[in-house]
Amino acid sequence: MAQAYLGYRDGDADTDYGAFFDPEMAALPDHVVTALQHGPQADQVLLEFDRAAMLLDEGYQPTETGYGWLRTGGFQVSVRTDMPGVTPQMWQWWFGWHGSQTRRYKLWHPRAHASARWADGGGDGSYVGRTSLIEEYLGSAYAKAAIRFLEPAELGLAPAADEIAVCARLGSSQAPVDIGWFVHHVRPTPDGAEMRSRFWMGGPWITVRGVAGTADRLIRPIAARQLPDPRDLMVHCAQEMNHLAGFLPELHRRFS
Amino acid sequence: MAQAYLGYRDGDADTDYGAFFDPEMAALPDHVVTALQHGPQADQVLLEFDRAAMLLDEGYQPTETGYGWLRTGGFQVSVRTDMPGVTPQMWQWWFGWHGSQTRRYKLWHPRAHASARWADGGGDGSYVGRTSLIEEYLGSAYAKAAIRFLEPAELGLAPAADEIAVCARLGSSQAPVDIGWFVHHVRPTPDGAEMRSRFWMGGPWITVRGVAGTADRLIRPIAARQLPDPRDLMVHCAQEMNHLAGFLPELHRRFS
Repeated sequence: MAQAYLGYRDGDADTDYGAFFDPEMAALPDHVVTALQHGPQADQVLLEFDRAAMLLDEGYQPTETGYGWLRTGGFQVSVRTDMPGVTPQMWQWWFGWHGSQTRRYKLWHPRAHASARWADGGGDGSYVGRTSLIEEYLGSAYAKAAIRFLEPAELGLAPAADEIAVCARLGSSQAPVDIGWFVHHVRPTPDGAEMRSRFWMGGPWITVRGVAGTADRLIRPIAARQLPDPRDLMVHCAQEMNHLAGFLPELHRRFS
Repeated sequence: MAQAYLGYRDGDADTDYGAFFDPEMAALPDHVVTALQHGPQADQVLLEFDRAAMLLDEGYQPTETGYGWLRTGGFQVSVRTDMPGVTPQMWQWWFGWHGSQTRRYKLWHPRAHASARWADGGGDGSYVGRTSLIEEYLGSAYAKAAIRFLEPAELGLAPAADEIAVCARLGSSQAPVDIGWFVHHVRPTPDGAEMRSRFWMGGPWITVRGVAGTADRLIRPIAARQLPDPRDLMVHCAQEMNHLAGFLPELHRRFS
């Protein structure tokens, strides 16, 4: 396989969707800037992993955008993204469409996404139950990750018919070690949709694949070195979701 | 004693003042955001502990809001808070009123304050000479602290009749170790008051209670681990002072 690289090079834009590649990303939404200024939050105002299903409750949580370190180890990151003109179903389509082509994956975060393919080698149309092998930057750190998409029910989530919850186990593609979980909940709003992302990383969520329980004292410090800075993860998520939402309606209309 | 927790739960709001609990905190004032962006400052533009009395001089100091690491060890944090409609005397009342009830203490920083009581077990009316035992988050770090309020004269401060200076020695409530000092100077302005907070933490200010001189090489590294990130301390102070100032005039009118 060719070496992964950032951005579009010769011929990369020669696809039906190539014109959607836009290396200029918008500034962070104001509420994300505010969360960066506030810095780490108390763990008691962050959503507990064991209560992930509460994300689907009506209204908003104490921390919709922010991050914090947890007394039990690891950290939690939350991001809310406003998406005028977008529907939850467009995101359902996107997760089943982008993963088979690096050039599609790069549309999402043109400054950080380097490579994407499905572990099963297959094409478009679905994502639940499949593993996306990606290479991307989180801040300045380069990650080779395996994202195993799950049924929401595996995290106890039962989204309503007009909502979606993209759930995944996140780990390394180079070693059989998982390091976190995430949920992207997308629900309708009066003028489109909003995505509410939650990540739980490190600490008790570092496990060796196929081995029950939290990884032992040998594995955890090594795996912890693979973890992004929670601040960088918050920025990355806010950027990519905001960026794609800007042209997702048109992309979906043309290619779904 | 019951386990401390953040926020109001069943019955917590059933007090005369419960309606003042507001979990929504305003965004940081612009001058605090600017200070965060500027990051750590040169120690020569930060107020020296030995010159704390200069805080009471007219005008403003080179760093009214900001933080920095000191060449002598430890760090210094400064925050200025504008308080329209507030008087210094309202803060004098607040410091003697809030410390006997956790539910009052939580009004001040609803996302970070978990518990408060006086070490002497007593009630309202004064704070100088008393020790407030608190539990709070500074960023994501949970602290169990003992705040011993002092006469301003103990730091060489002689506030004018229409000003106050809340001075304290800050330490652990779990071990006989102190880690810092602070002063909140409140003076009148044309439209209310302004608070000018100064913290000196770590380094030479880590001492074993009742033992003269800076703590030895055994204690200091352990105590240093209890120190907050100066950035988190600046955000916390700016948030709590700004938040309470929003309803302190009405609270004072009703309960003083």
